[in-house]
Amino acid sequence: MDPLVERVLQGEKSALARVISRIENREPQAVALLDELFLHQKAAPRIGVTGPPGAGKSTLVTGLIRILREQGHRVGVVAVDPTSPFSGGAVLGDRVRMNEVALDPGVFIRSMATRGSLGGLASTSREVCEALDAFGSDRILLETVGVGQSELDVAQAADSTVVVVVPESGDSVQALKAGLMEIADIFVVNKADREGADRMVHDLESALSLKNWKDRWKPPVLKTVASRGEGIREVNEALERHAAWQLETGQLSHRRRESVGARILELTREAVTRAVLAKAGRPELEARVDAVLKGVESPYRAAERWAAELLDTANAPSP
Amino acid sequence: MDPLVERVLQGEKSALARVISRIENREPQAVALLDELFLHQKAAPRIGVTGPPGAGKSTLVTGLIRILREQGHRVGVVAVDPTSPFSGGAVLGDRVRMNEVALDPGVFIRSMATRGSLGGLASTSREVCEALDAFGSDRILLETVGVGQSELDVAQAADSTVVVVVPESGDSVQALKAGLMEIADIFVVNKADREGADRMVHDLESALSLKNWKDRWKPPVLKTVASRGEGIREVNEALERHAAWQLETGQLSHRRRESVGARILELTREAVTRAVLAKAGRPELEARVDAVLKGVESPYRAAERWAAELLDTANAPSP
Repeated sequence: MDPLVERVLQGEKSALARVISRIENREPQAVALLDELFLHQKAAPRIGVTGPPGAGKSTLVTGLIRILREQGHRVGVVAVDPTSPFSGGAVLGDRVRMNEVALDPGVFIRSMATRGSLGGLASTSREVCEALDAFGSDRILLETVGVGQSELDVAQAADSTVVVVVPESGDSVQALKAGLMEIADIFVVNKADREGADRMVHDLESALSLKNWKDRWKPPVLKTVASRGEGIREVNEALERHAAWQLETGQLSHRRRESVGARILELTREAVTRAVLAKAGRPELEARVDAVLKGVESPYRAAERWAAELLDTANAPSP
Repeated sequence: MDPLVERVLQGEKSALARVISRIENREPQAVALLDELFLHQKAAPRIGVTGPPGAGKSTLVTGLIRILREQGHRVGVVAVDPTSPFSGGAVLGDRVRMNEVALDPGVFIRSMATRGSLGGLASTSREVCEALDAFGSDRILLETVGVGQSELDVAQAADSTVVVVVPESGDSVQALKAGLMEIADIFVVNKADREGADRMVHDLESALSLKNWKDRWKPPVLKTVASRGEGIREVNEALERHAAWQLETGQLSHRRRESVGARILELTREAVTRAVLAKAGRPELEARVDAVLKGVESPYRAAERWAAELLDTANAPSP
């Protein structure tokens, strides 16, 4: 076993931090580490917390961490959110609250704030969750800023997803309603002491009531004032109910099966393209670009011909 | 030549609509159509208009269409935005304004409101732009709701990108600032008759002033009240200046070269994986999922082995 993996399994935070850095930087050795870590997971529940910027996701996450710690859990947090206080983008009061939980030895927080590669972040955050699980976190929180498809992909790494909105997020909720309805297991209207909270709850419940929930989990709509700790215990209870429901109905194993299948396909696709495109050099590309820019052929034809050539030589013995 | 392509080149709207549907549905014959259409493009400038939901992008687009029509241009519009009035998600007043331009024979509007496949939308919207160009649109407007990475990818299909914000979008602009700075060629603060407009202009200009713009295009920050048509002429003039600057500096040909290169690589990657994974059947996947769920191996190892097997047989002669 890789000594670094051994140290992660023994619960050494600095080793975990190094492994995660290797995963994030997509270092080639990371795959060997991930391979070993994967088999040491204990299937910790993964809880996604998503919503528009400013909805108070981090404050809610901090509240959830406190309750989970009271219950004796070891908590891992992955924050994929450039606006998250965990990523340093915070106002002072938030940061004070964060620090308190961040200094707790039973909590490991990792922020992944790299913008510009969100596509890859969906895979990377899954991998970081695997490392956290092997490390011994028995509850994993995944905070994402839920505004685009890629962020929703990240959220789907979770077993249960909490969608946080505020009374004022009317416009963006409207925009995302279809998408949010698909991923939310629990809706939280945070900052519920503000005007419009009840209307927002009502809007969400009306939208939910239009669907047929027979044999399915109907997301509850909860109110919180996360900055004062109000309503967070109820969120945690709803998460426990959802986890129990998933277990009883077989949804959890179904979901994990689907997820492993998708992951194998994705990794196989990557490995195949990597192997084949390793033979596709820059000069070959430039020649093809020239042909397209001269109007000789379209990129569609160029790619088709190139792919055929690459596959032809992919297994030819090296000279 | 495909008779449908011929009809598109003759400017027949119904033929164009059919071609676009085939592109959107990713029908296999679409590639042959795209191949022919690509070579009949006249390099129409592509103008992206992006920003958060409710910023008034569609109203601005409508205003731009009017001005471009006055100048005698034929205009194509692609709206990749589930909240766009072009996609039917409009309030009444907007829709009246839209209808007026939509009925103009010199305007072709296509909305692509399909949520849930935004990854593919980046390619698809490029392809639709190619079809519009071959059809004879000499100005192409691309409206996207700019909140996530995938939407930004769509916006990057444009030669010039207008980022629209409103005085109130403080939070989300903060969140997206880095991303927006990267893609904006022109900033528009719309609904500039509202409180906070000058502060938003000032904030954007301060952020811009932190960067070194030597030999680069510094995005102007313009104010509009698109619903009253105010300031839109200035946006169009800024777009013309940006286009002229790109032409003079060689940026345009550089950008198009990069874009064709990226497209060829992407299409080649797709063709390679399609060819190889065609041999990867469901039973083979299920067996690998079982092994992973039983803890025999990780998805990483499973994918590595599978990819090697697939590549081994990819070129074996069929029995």
